[in-house]
Amino acid sequence: MTSLDDLPLRDDLRGQEPYGAPHLHLPVQLNVNENTHPIPEDVARDIIEAIARELLQVNRYPDREFTALRDSLAGYLGHGLTRDNLWAANGSNEVLQQILMAFGGPGRTVLGFPPTYSMHSIIAHGTGTEWIAGERDADYLISPETAVDWVTRTKPDLVFFCAPNNPTGTALGLDTIAAAYDATDGMVIVDEAYAEFMPDGEPSALTLLEGRPRLIVSRTMSKAFAFAGARLGYLAADPAVTDAIRLVRLPYHLSALTQAAAVAALAHAPEMLAMVDDIKAQRDRIVDELTELGYSPWPSAANFVLFGGVDDPAALWQALLDRGIIIRNLSIPGHLRVSAGTAAETTAFLDAMRELTVH
Amino acid sequence: MTSLDDLPLRDDLRGQEPYGAPHLHLPVQLNVNENTHPIPEDVARDIIEAIARELLQVNRYPDREFTALRDSLAGYLGHGLTRDNLWAANGSNEVLQQILMAFGGPGRTVLGFPPTYSMHSIIAHGTGTEWIAGERDADYLISPETAVDWVTRTKPDLVFFCAPNNPTGTALGLDTIAAAYDATDGMVIVDEAYAEFMPDGEPSALTLLEGRPRLIVSRTMSKAFAFAGARLGYLAADPAVTDAIRLVRLPYHLSALTQAAAVAALAHAPEMLAMVDDIKAQRDRIVDELTELGYSPWPSAANFVLFGGVDDPAALWQALLDRGIIIRNLSIPGHLRVSAGTAAETTAFLDAMRELTVH
Repeated sequence: MTSLDDLPLRDDLRGQEPYGAPHLHLPVQLNVNENTHPIPEDVARDIIEAIARELLQVNRYPDREFTALRDSLAGYLGHGLTRDNLWAANGSNEVLQQILMAFGGPGRTVLGFPPTYSMHSIIAHGTGTEWIAGERDADYLISPETAVDWVTRTKPDLVFFCAPNNPTGTALGLDTIAAAYDATDGMVIVDEAYAEFMPDGEPSALTLLEGRPRLIVSRTMSKAFAFAGARLGYLAADPAVTDAIRLVRLPYHLSALTQAAAVAALAHAPEMLAMVDDIKAQRDRIVDELTELGYSPWPSAANFVLFGGVDDPAALWQALLDRGIIIRNLSIPGHLRVSAGTAAETTAFLDAMRELTVH
Repeated sequence: MTSLDDLPLRDDLRGQEPYGAPHLHLPVQLNVNENTHPIPEDVARDIIEAIARELLQVNRYPDREFTALRDSLAGYLGHGLTRDNLWAANGSNEVLQQILMAFGGPGRTVLGFPPTYSMHSIIAHGTGTEWIAGERDADYLISPETAVDWVTRTKPDLVFFCAPNNPTGTALGLDTIAAAYDATDGMVIVDEAYAEFMPDGEPSALTLLEGRPRLIVSRTMSKAFAFAGARLGYLAADPAVTDAIRLVRLPYHLSALTQAAAVAALAHAPEMLAMVDDIKAQRDRIVDELTELGYSPWPSAANFVLFGGVDDPAALWQALLDRGIIIRNLSIPGHLRVSAGTAAETTAFLDAMRELTVH
């Protein structure tokens, strides 16, 4: 049998393992920060009708510029954005890959601040961009001074922030983003995959776009819009940024079915976002009850909670799994991460935690 | 206003234009080798039902391994292939990009034989792989000796063939592929996007896979399955090749809706492929009638015809456009390319050509 070692694989891939959370089907799945609420039936019906219309011409290539979708995304985001500021791809992973293909690549560097979304460094590696691991302040925060210090010392071509940050859930001040922007001539990317779960009134980095053509804010429909299976990530930036990405995108990368499904879902934004409030309530409940149980959850502005004070994370992860509940072990010493589910799922998790916590 | 020049774009992208055929909506569109037959209604109904089922859980990430789809593709291809031999992505462009990310990249080279599918060199460039332009024999053919000569002299890390070749429509002998394989330690990729349009009984490069772990055959559902809008490209190869691609693919790159739509369409393969015979008949008619009109069409094993003997390609292209018919000007001197359409579309094209041809 032929093995990977017999093939002329790129040298820097030798010995690597593919990325991926364990793929197990369990009654309570709180491991990959999905929105555990199915989409409402009336929304599903509208999506089906939109897709049925597209199928009549699915023999033709899709709109390469996905104009209707960019209009819908701009309308959803507000902040005076128009279709010219918007770009989309099959998940925000592909958006980030396209950004790195346009502005990164061999001989260029990207600065990030671990622990953060693990795909950032993986996509950097895949595009040949050197990953520089900056260091956070205490409590996983990044002050403007810390960001400027790292940017000034390492002179990266791109800076990646994740706000709120995965896997810590911690928020990021706009002053840090603005200071990093002023300290670099490179691109600054703010991954706002979890932005809709921020405390009410907390401003998005979208408010910083005006006058900052090197700033990019990426988003996803996977979380707030319960659309992880449909794969729709997007970004907002200066129109020149979207022109740059057109130089590296594969033509027709976004299917007609994806475009139609996303436009139909965005037309129901208020209904889809109503679920977000439920999820935030469950998240806050997780923080409160884990604190009562003696754990140390980090304050979270996202749809998940990272909690410390776990003596043996692998053992607790397995004990929960044995009870039909999967959460995430990210190999942060003493910590595990759990997504906020429905009220019932969250109760199942917290009940199990109560059982498993010996005082 | 910010322009591309104001951004820290990758140096080798400066001054480039994005790839893309002109995007015009005209009554007769024969410019991008689409299948101009809409999918049958009963197939569309099954696709809709499959997608409706998926929407119930679209809040969850899709099957990262798209197992059901790989089973369906293996069943369609036959040749003793199983799911372990199959891989898929959003269009064969993405399949080719993933191949180049795994086996190409900076410091590596890929040999191709222009004129060929223009995305091959563009994707090579995008992944930092150096493109080596080989030369064909007369009549756009590639003999085993020519292939071996180029492989031996240039020592590429990958060899790309396109069979039947776009934009010439010409077939490629399996002896050439086998000889190139034996002459290299690198990967050999055969892009068979148009394989279903080959003359009956003509063997596919799939018959060469057994015992050749460095050979990859890529396919697409865009053409024979009238599925350009759904974006489904795939490959067949040794299981070790798919393991290599798992190291560079973005996790969850294939949406649950795409997977469901493709599985449903593949279940109707005989019905979908019935259209292929109609298209082949129209293609042969184009070759015959253009010959009668005094043009020099190349023999085609695909769903399009490249024809020479055009005094002023740009003028003829525009004159057809003025009549509501769009075909493709690929800047091959004296040549234009036309896709075979339905009988009515083909008649409209040929009638216009008769009018526009002065004797």
